[in-house]
Amino acid sequence: MSNNNPIGVFDSGVGGLTVAKEIMRQLPNEKIIYLGDNARCPYGPRPMEEIKQYTWEMVRFLLQKNIKMLIIACNTATAAALDELKDQLDIPVIGVIYPGARAAIEESRNLHIGVIGTVGAIASGAYENALTNIHSGVKVTSLACPKFVPIVESGEWGSPIAERVVKEGLAPLKGTGIDTLVLGCTHYPFLEKVISKELGLGVSIISSGEETARDASTILQFNEMQSPNKSAPSHEFYTTGSRRMFNRIAVELFGTEIDNIERIQTSED
Amino acid sequence: MSNNNPIGVFDSGVGGLTVAKEIMRQLPNEKIIYLGDNARCPYGPRPMEEIKQYTWEMVRFLLQKNIKMLIIACNTATAAALDELKDQLDIPVIGVIYPGARAAIEESRNLHIGVIGTVGAIASGAYENALTNIHSGVKVTSLACPKFVPIVESGEWGSPIAERVVKEGLAPLKGTGIDTLVLGCTHYPFLEKVISKELGLGVSIISSGEETARDASTILQFNEMQSPNKSAPSHEFYTTGSRRMFNRIAVELFGTEIDNIERIQTSED
Repeated sequence: MSNNNPIGVFDSGVGGLTVAKEIMRQLPNEKIIYLGDNARCPYGPRPMEEIKQYTWEMVRFLLQKNIKMLIIACNTATAAALDELKDQLDIPVIGVIYPGARAAIEESRNLHIGVIGTVGAIASGAYENALTNIHSGVKVTSLACPKFVPIVESGEWGSPIAERVVKEGLAPLKGTGIDTLVLGCTHYPFLEKVISKELGLGVSIISSGEETARDASTILQFNEMQSPNKSAPSHEFYTTGSRRMFNRIAVELFGTEIDNIERIQTSED
Repeated sequence: MSNNNPIGVFDSGVGGLTVAKEIMRQLPNEKIIYLGDNARCPYGPRPMEEIKQYTWEMVRFLLQKNIKMLIIACNTATAAALDELKDQLDIPVIGVIYPGARAAIEESRNLHIGVIGTVGAIASGAYENALTNIHSGVKVTSLACPKFVPIVESGEWGSPIAERVVKEGLAPLKGTGIDTLVLGCTHYPFLEKVISKELGLGVSIISSGEETARDASTILQFNEMQSPNKSAPSHEFYTTGSRRMFNRIAVELFGTEIDNIERIQTSED
């Protein structure tokens, strides 16, 4: 058995492109339909009900594209809507929280794990729940870093401002004794070098993007849904926001422009 | 939803204990029922039909223990019987080949991956198939190392003999340009230090045990089958061979004796 339909990847903005990039690297035969709700990004500070409503709206768009699997490549949307989506859809749905939690437990030796994320994701306690559900002996230190996403969405992750914001944002983690840090937001891998420099070699960094791609691979194979395609698929990209801005970030990430970015409207346009 | 039933782990001998150890580390709430067919180990040189027959016999024993998931912690048995078991059992069945392949693709940067295993596992081409199924651009260099399992089963992995056998066994891999090596046999992690020393820092070593535990975690959570148990479960161990020998190796691996090893009979006793 196999399945040639695409994988749907949804994020509140461009952060999910780090998941898409890893899917392209680890599962190069799989076609991706990407949708970023850039017009309404960031989701982090929004009320739970609004995040759910936006997520469902975006997911309905992806379902029309006949996707075989849905990846919620946004920690905030995962915390808000994953359980509901899993219950109600008849395709596999993967969020970014459990893959990151699983990888952190695999990596950590002292079982003291740090998690950084948006205000919404951290306040939901979703990572802490995932980590302690898998391993009741884990100690978790969580920290909201609300200034990180705007830095990425504005394309400033290589600037001196980024270094200052990261330094200030991570200060509460210094001296806590964590040996592993989960980047609990798919935007943060853009800042990974700066974060890693700030925390030093003693702290392993877990990128939920890489780990989510790995879990997608596991679930596809377990369900015998891998693509039989051996030629490079042509991916499709959609955004509710500016195509120019989207492409600027895609170029930084993929090293090349994306030709086929289409702008779609939200219920609020 | 959750499920308190145990996970069944089967190996032709003690190699699968490296998978069990990783399950204990990554999923400490899960109870394990381990069965090693030590009396008929190694499976590697046996004909395919015989490996299938032995595997089914061992699996039937584990099914009587009301397991919720089956892990075939033996590369040879995975290559021979995984597809059949997946088809015919109504619980999730995980082999050790795909988890190792997936991790190798995640790890490798030059996509030239080495695989070592028993004669049977290598001859079956199972790793090569798994790797190229996931990623058609991967180059695979495979090598059978038939002398490695006997060294481990006899408890000699720390001896000078082990160093010599590993050096000679791995010689054909020198200069091939692989940047990642899959230990395609669950016995080989016992030899990991010696293998790693022999190949040097430029080659990342992937232990299928660690990666299989990670995939088990993914599948359990995806199917909402994690144990709700928060106290340490008491695992059960069975062998078709010598309990003394089994315990000698368990002590080396776990740092403590296993009290409850029970000897069971095969159809050939």
